[in-house]
Amino acid sequence: MTGFFEMGQQVLVSQPFSRLLGTELCELSEGYAELSLRIREDFKQSYGFVHGGVVSYLADNCLTFAGATVLGNCVTSEFKINYVMPTIGDLMVAKSTVLAFALRQAVCECKVYVVRNQESMLVAVAQGTIVKIETDIRTGA
Amino acid sequence: MTGFFEMGQQVLVSQPFSRLLGTELCELSEGYAELSLRIREDFKQSYGFVHGGVVSYLADNCLTFAGATVLGNCVTSEFKINYVMPTIGDLMVAKSTVLAFALRQAVCECKVYVVRNQESMLVAVAQGTIVKIETDIRTGA
Amino acid sequence: MTGFFEMGQQVLVSQPFSRLLGTELCELSEGYAELSLRIREDFKQSYGFVHGGVVSYLADNCLTFAGATVLGNCVTSEFKINYVMPTIGDLMVAKSTVLAFALRQAVCECKVYVVRNQESMLVAVAQGTIVKIETDIRTGA
Amino acid sequence: MTGFFEMGQQVLVSQPFSRLLGTELCELSEGYAELSLRIREDFKQSYGFVHGGVVSYLADNCLTFAGATVLGNCVTSEFKINYVMPTIGDLMVAKSTVLAFALRQAVCECKVYVVRNQESMLVAVAQGTIVKIETDIRTGA
Repeated sequence: MTGFFEMGQQVLVSQPFSRLLGTELCELSEGYAELSLRIREDFKQSYGFVHGGVVSYLADNCLTFAGATVLGNCVTSEFKINYVMPTIGDLMVAKSTVLAFALRQAVCECKVYVVRNQESMLVAVAQGTIVKIETDIRTGA
Repeated sequence: MTGFFEMGQQVLVSQPFSRLLGTELCELSEGYAELSLRIREDFKQSYGFVHGGVVSYLADNCLTFAGATVLGNCVTSEFKINYVMPTIGDLMVAKSTVLAFALRQAVCECKVYVVRNQESMLVAVAQGTIVKIETDIRTGA
Repeated sequence: MTGFFEMGQQVLVSQPFSRLLGTELCELSEGYAELSLRIREDFKQSYGFVHGGVVSYLADNCLTFAGATVLGNCVTSEFKINYVMPTIGDLMVAKSTVLAFALRQAVCECKVYVVRNQESMLVAVAQGTIVKIETDIRTGA
Repeated sequence: MTGFFEMGQQVLVSQPFSRLLGTELCELSEGYAELSLRIREDFKQSYGFVHGGVVSYLADNCLTFAGATVLGNCVTSEFKINYVMPTIGDLMVAKSTVLAFALRQAVCECKVYVVRNQESMLVAVAQGTIVKIETDIRTGA
């Protein structure tokens, strides 16, 4: 699946916010995406674990990457996330799967894990709708 | 409501991720929170508008701030966000209201606006559950 | 707004499931819908209050009615609901407002109340996406 | 897992709304629940397929049943559902799995299928939070 992976890396590099945080693409194949993010001190919130906003960013981005493998250019229309454990560790890994799709939208789920002491733990689960991009969305008109 | 506002500013300053992005507290009163975030180039995604992850971070944080005014120390347990328009502009403003709360949790809604050419436009709406922090959550045990 | 209201009543009467439960239309105007449902014994779950499924049905239907006032024929694509209090009382009332809409979809919020001893209490809040119906959805193809 | 299954059947029989619709328990084991519902004419909405409210009821109930296998007495606190295809067929089947749980709550996902001409198709996916019941919730106080 070299084609998907290379396309995905180009998209990731073209996202200033993903570069700011340092997101990496691990895997991209039809209906599946995997992103990782090394945890830094400046990702944290006041209690010392990773801010939920970083977790939701990673889930959101991973949902879109999975959707893009079946839709092409697309954005997240909406999603829901449940945080199930504080994110404390070295690395976050998000894995997203397309559950169903039609011409213009895909419904995907995403699980976010944290790796701590070589052990992977589920920290959040998300579900959302990814929609194919139309010209009016690109321009914001 | 000076007490709330000062408490809120201390919490915001104690969040490394909010400092990284530059979030500011506009208002904090019982059952209501308002945060703003000046848009920077490195907040964007590949289509040139603000990454959904930044919008969801701001909504998540604002939901928690609103919840904290009725619960004290708390975290977001889960939330859902609908993006209704691409975020293009100079400043983002999130406004969150507590809809209902009990001893241990609050349900809050949040609207996120972008300010462009002195005009404010709704870009996202969120709804979520904020839960009071217990000791086991702080330690991640 | 007689036109909306009459259209809404026809739709409600054409829904066998709404007839089974006894849903009534209270108000329908551009961007707003209000439905009510008298509580019956057979709506309950094992703890003696109304089953969440009845509450979510009413929210779902009310979201669609609000969306229909700006989209025409439509269905609920997705929604999220938070139950904030057990539903115990005589009557449920759902009120839904369109928050944002474009050509093909609307994002709406809905609050569900229960009336008990002449007092109205919030029991659930919902938020969802309503999409204009395309021919392929009607046929299920 | 006879213990779970018998407990589940008692709960289902004690739910007047589930009796009204005719829900049946197919399977109940630690962390997993499966419910089915034969489709009737009076479950439909105006376009001739099953009303989303019936689908969301079944998902909600199935999420709670899965949660109950790890929490004991519990209710759905919140959930989100994406409808991915119109529900047209003879039988609906919901399958819910616990993704994570702690002392007081479980996060579960649910997939709802319709069986038509001996074929099973995914019609909806849901994700939600199930919470252990406290006395104050039972009484509605």
